Amino acid sequence: MTERDTIPASGKAAYITEEVRRRIIEKEWRQGDRIPDEAALAAEFGVARATVNKALQLLADEGLLDRRRRAGTRVAVNPVRKATFSIPIVREQIEAAGKSYSHRLISQSRSPLPARRAEQLGLSPGEVLIHLRAVHYGDRQPFQLEDRWINPRAVPGIEEVDFHHLNANEWLVRNAPYLRAELTFSASNAGVRDARLLDTEPEQALLILNRTTWNDIGPITAVRLAFHPGYAMSATT
Amino acid sequence: MTERDTIPASGKAAYITEEVRRRIIEKEWRQGDRIPDEAALAAEFGVARATVNKALQLLADEGLLDRRRRAGTRVAVNPVRKATFSIPIVREQIEAAGKSYSHRLISQSRSPLPARRAEQLGLSPGEVLIHLRAVHYGDRQPFQLEDRWINPRAVPGIEEVDFHHLNANEWLVRNAPYLRAELTFSASNAGVRDARLLDTEPEQALLILNRTTWNDIGPITAVRLAFHPGYAMSATT
Repeated sequence: MTERDTIPASGKAAYITEEVRRRIIEKEWRQGDRIPDEAALAAEFGVARATVNKALQLLADEGLLDRRRRAGTRVAVNPVRKATFSIPIVREQIEAAGKSYSHRLISQSRSPLPARRAEQLGLSPGEVLIHLRAVHYGDRQPFQLEDRWINPRAVPGIEEVDFHHLNANEWLVRNAPYLRAELTFSASNAGVRDARLLDTEPEQALLILNRTTWNDIGPITAVRLAFHPGYAMSATT
Repeated sequence: MTERDTIPASGKAAYITEEVRRRIIEKEWRQGDRIPDEAALAAEFGVARATVNKALQLLADEGLLDRRRRAGTRVAVNPVRKATFSIPIVREQIEAAGKSYSHRLISQSRSPLPARRAEQLGLSPGEVLIHLRAVHYGDRQPFQLEDRWINPRAVPGIEEVDFHHLNANEWLVRNAPYLRAELTFSASNAGVRDARLLDTEPEQALLILNRTTWNDIGPITAVRLAFHPGYAMSATT
């Protein structure tokens, strides 16, 4: 049994990922270069081709390698690097920061969908959806303002839920897994009402996250989250 | 040869991913449930265990499954869903929108690092780095304002580059691949100078992207990008 045999398969792929990354960073393999094929790398590292494939795919997903079925694998010339961030449950995000979570439902109604939200959801303006507005607090300081539309046709049972006691974010995460989501980050000057709810000044710049989700029935929910001033959302590559 | 044999291996994994996702979305498998093990799924779908493993890992990376070495795979109870976005080259981002790209270097100097940037880079305040400020335009309208510090110790050769003709974003992407990056999104009210450079009003809310990258020598660059008003950055899950 060699030293290599003691590394678990996932460890071997991770080792190869790091070694290939090192060769690119240190320019042993330069941008545009074709790298050795899977069989050659499998022989070099003494692993199965599937393990090499897994390691290279990870670097391709990151944007560092460019894989083509016939042309082989090259070091990407203009790597479009990808970054990932988590979409946490707001309660867990606040509690992870060591703060006590609370939330306040401002309104819950069945309302006709305004044109802009209809477009976001791919539904007709005027269609009746559930509309919620709520504030989420950490240690009683406003953290996030939520303005949400929910499509009851995609989420059977939702009309019986009272969101005074359970927040919609948690209910949906647990009861309405989505197939697809679209998110956008933007910035907006606080209006008078948002400023009051977030305990800040009108015109204050706020980070806005819009998110729409779909399941196999149709659109589930469109939510606009406005974060308290100074909030920064982190991502990693 | 059965029907199944005609599906390529990557197609098989994609099929299993979609089928498992469907069972979760339609609640055949409920949150917290332990799902059949890899061997059982491999037998059900008539594929290799490695193919099942690949399909399940994708759903675990998405946050929909919770995989534990001994406890098996369960449908995640509180799925922390992940979203991914691309970090494009600014020129390509503008050209992809069908606009003509141009950029203007406002300043390029060797300057002592201010305290806040020093913290972001993990370097000492006062250390001398390259400081650049530039505006990127689409069809001559300001798109992005760039304020960048570059550590010449991590990027040999950078001190000879004249960024009047080549933008720093492209030079770094092609010549200084990074090992690790940290990004944050936030919002900020435009100052007088930023407002003038972005052709907007002071106090306008701007989306800000801060990014710091590292290679094996140390920090490469810390950049603050301020986007023109109304810009939204999209991500998908």
